[in-house]
Amino acid sequence: MSRMNRRIVLASRPHGAASADNFRLETVPVPEPGEGEVLIRHRFLSLDPYMRGRMSEAKSYAAPQPLGEVMIGGTAGEVIASRHAGYREGDSVVSMGGWQEYSIARGDAGALAPRKVDARRAPLSAFLGVLGMPGVTAWYGLNAICEPKPGETVAVSAASGAVGGVVGQLAKLKGCRVVGVAGGREKCDYVVRELGFDACIDYKAAADVRALGEQLAAAAPAGIDGYFENVGGAVLDAVLPLMNAFGRIAVCGMISSYDGSPAPLANPMLILRSRLKVQGFIVAEHPSAWPQAMAEIGAALAAGKLKYRESVAEGIERAPEAFLGLLTGRNFGKQLVKLG
Amino acid sequence: MSRMNRRIVLASRPHGAASADNFRLETVPVPEPGEGEVLIRHRFLSLDPYMRGRMSEAKSYAAPQPLGEVMIGGTAGEVIASRHAGYREGDSVVSMGGWQEYSIARGDAGALAPRKVDARRAPLSAFLGVLGMPGVTAWYGLNAICEPKPGETVAVSAASGAVGGVVGQLAKLKGCRVVGVAGGREKCDYVVRELGFDACIDYKAAADVRALGEQLAAAAPAGIDGYFENVGGAVLDAVLPLMNAFGRIAVCGMISSYDGSPAPLANPMLILRSRLKVQGFIVAEHPSAWPQAMAEIGAALAAGKLKYRESVAEGIERAPEAFLGLLTGRNFGKQLVKLG
Repeated sequence: MSRMNRRIVLASRPHGAASADNFRLETVPVPEPGEGEVLIRHRFLSLDPYMRGRMSEAKSYAAPQPLGEVMIGGTAGEVIASRHAGYREGDSVVSMGGWQEYSIARGDAGALAPRKVDARRAPLSAFLGVLGMPGVTAWYGLNAICEPKPGETVAVSAASGAVGGVVGQLAKLKGCRVVGVAGGREKCDYVVRELGFDACIDYKAAADVRALGEQLAAAAPAGIDGYFENVGGAVLDAVLPLMNAFGRIAVCGMISSYDGSPAPLANPMLILRSRLKVQGFIVAEHPSAWPQAMAEIGAALAAGKLKYRESVAEGIERAPEAFLGLLTGRNFGKQLVKLG
Repeated sequence: MSRMNRRIVLASRPHGAASADNFRLETVPVPEPGEGEVLIRHRFLSLDPYMRGRMSEAKSYAAPQPLGEVMIGGTAGEVIASRHAGYREGDSVVSMGGWQEYSIARGDAGALAPRKVDARRAPLSAFLGVLGMPGVTAWYGLNAICEPKPGETVAVSAASGAVGGVVGQLAKLKGCRVVGVAGGREKCDYVVRELGFDACIDYKAAADVRALGEQLAAAAPAGIDGYFENVGGAVLDAVLPLMNAFGRIAVCGMISSYDGSPAPLANPMLILRSRLKVQGFIVAEHPSAWPQAMAEIGAALAAGKLKYRESVAEGIERAPEAFLGLLTGRNFGKQLVKLG
C-alpha cells in the first residue's frame, strides 16, 4: 500500500471572517518524484497572515489561491527521495510545500527551488521564523523603510509575533527606544521581560483609540520616529498623531482589515503635517535583502541577543484552527504546525 | 504726513470653515527702515493654501499665526529705501512681507532675507508662482517623491492651480501620460487644451467616489504610477485603488481637510496591497532643491513649454475674500492680490 498524504485545500472563499468551513482535509497517495524533482516530507508548516489575502478573490498583490487546491504555505522538512543531483535524501530543506504532509518540488525552479538549510545551526522550525521569511521581513521593513537611528523611538504592532518580535529586538540592538503594541497582558509582559522592549501597550485593555494613544504617548515621550505596522485600524490611528516630523512607517500587514471591510485611516492629513513616509512592502519582492538580513539575524541569534517564541499546533488537521487563531491573535509568537 | 500702510491681521481663529470675520483691515504708518534693513513696497501678495493651517491653533508643521499680527505671506515688490549695502532702491525683491502694502526686512536674515529677482526675465508676479515657491513645490514633489519615468502615468489634483499646473507640465516634459483632476468644466478644458495634459477629470461633475474612480480609470488605462496630492478626501479615495504596484504619492496638500474635521482615508490597506510610498513634504524644508528646480523651470518657461494662469484680486482689502475663494476653488490658477 502506498504512503498517504494528508492535505488541506481551500473549499470555499470567506465572506467576512474566514472560518473552518473554508477548508477541507483530503487524503491522497504520496506522489512519486519525476526526473529533476525531489519528494519532501514536511516537519513544520508555517502559518502567516498573508495567507488570508490569498483566500479571497479580491485583487491582491498575488493571485488568489485556487479553490480545491492545496493552501499555499512555507514548509520545513527533509528530502526523502531525490531525482535531482543537487539534493540528497536526508537534506533539510525549506520550501513552499503548502498545507500538507508531503510535497514534490523541482530542483531547478530557481527562487522557488527548495532551499537547503543547516539543521545543526538551529532547530528546523527556526528556518520558518527568525531565520526565514518572518525574520527577513522584520529586517527589511526596519532597515529599508523605518531606517532607525540610535536614540530614536521605534514602535511595532503585533510585537510578540514572529515579525514584530524581531523588529523590536533589532531596533534595540541599533540603540533605539522600542515600544511594542500587543494583545493581552501576558504577551506584553513577554515583549518587555523576554524580548527587552522598553515598553509594550496592551491594545485590548485600552478603551478606545484615544486611550491607546495616551498610553503610547506615555511610553514614547519623545514621539515615534519609526513605526512597523502589522495590524492597521485603531492601532494605526493611535500611532499616527505621535509620529515625529519626517517619521517613517513600514506597512507590512494590516491584519485588522483582512476580514470584511477595510478599516479607514482617520486622519491622513497627519502624513502631510508630520511629513511622514508611509510605505507598503512585501518581502518576497526584495530577495536581495536576504544575505545581509540572514547575516545580521544569524549573528544576533548566535550571540544570544535574539529570542523568539513559537505556538505549535500538532497535525495537519489542526492547521485551519491554528490559522484562524492567528488571524485573531490567539497565537503567541510564530505560529507553526508540527507534522509527522 | 507720513505714508500709510494698509494691512490684514488675524482677528480670530476659525471654528470650522474660515470666514471674513477672521480677518481685520488696519491702517498704520509705514515704518522707517533701521540700520541693516530695507523698506519694501509690495506689488503682489501670494495667497496659498498653507496659510489656512497657520490660522488654527492645532499642532501644525509651523507655529500658528499670532492673533492681531499681520497674516504671513509671500510678496513681490520693490525696495524703496535701503539701509543695507546689499540692496538698492528700485531692486525687485521677493520676501515674506505678509498681507500688507509695505514691509521692513533685514538684509542679513539669511534664507529669510529678501531675494532679489530679475524683473526683466519674467513678470514680477511669476516669482510668486511658477518661478517661486509653487513652482519649486511642484518640481520637488514630482521629482523627489513621484519620481516619474517616461511612459508612466502621473495624476495630479488641483490641476489648474499654481502647483498642479506645473506638476503636470513637467511630467509631460518627462514623457509621462498626465491626468489632472480639477473642479469644473472650464478648468478641465484649460488643463487639457492650454497646459497639454492628456486628460482632466471634473470632480465636481462626478456623483461619488466610485464615479470619479471610473472616470479616472478610463483616463489612466494603464493605472497611475505617480500621484501628486493637493486636496485629499474623495479624490484621494478615488485615486488610491488605481495606483499601480510600487506607485508613489507626494502629499503636498489636503485642502479638503483644512476646514473642520479631517477627511478619513477609506482604504489604507491599498498602501500595502500595491506597495505604495505615500510621503508628505513641505518645500520650505528642502532649500537645496531651488537651484535645480529654478534651472529646469526657467528653461521650460523660456522655451515656451510651461504655461500658467493667474487670478488677481485688486487691493489688500480684497485679500480675505480672495483667500476664502482659494480654499473653495473659486480661483483659476495662481491666486494673487495686486497692490498699489
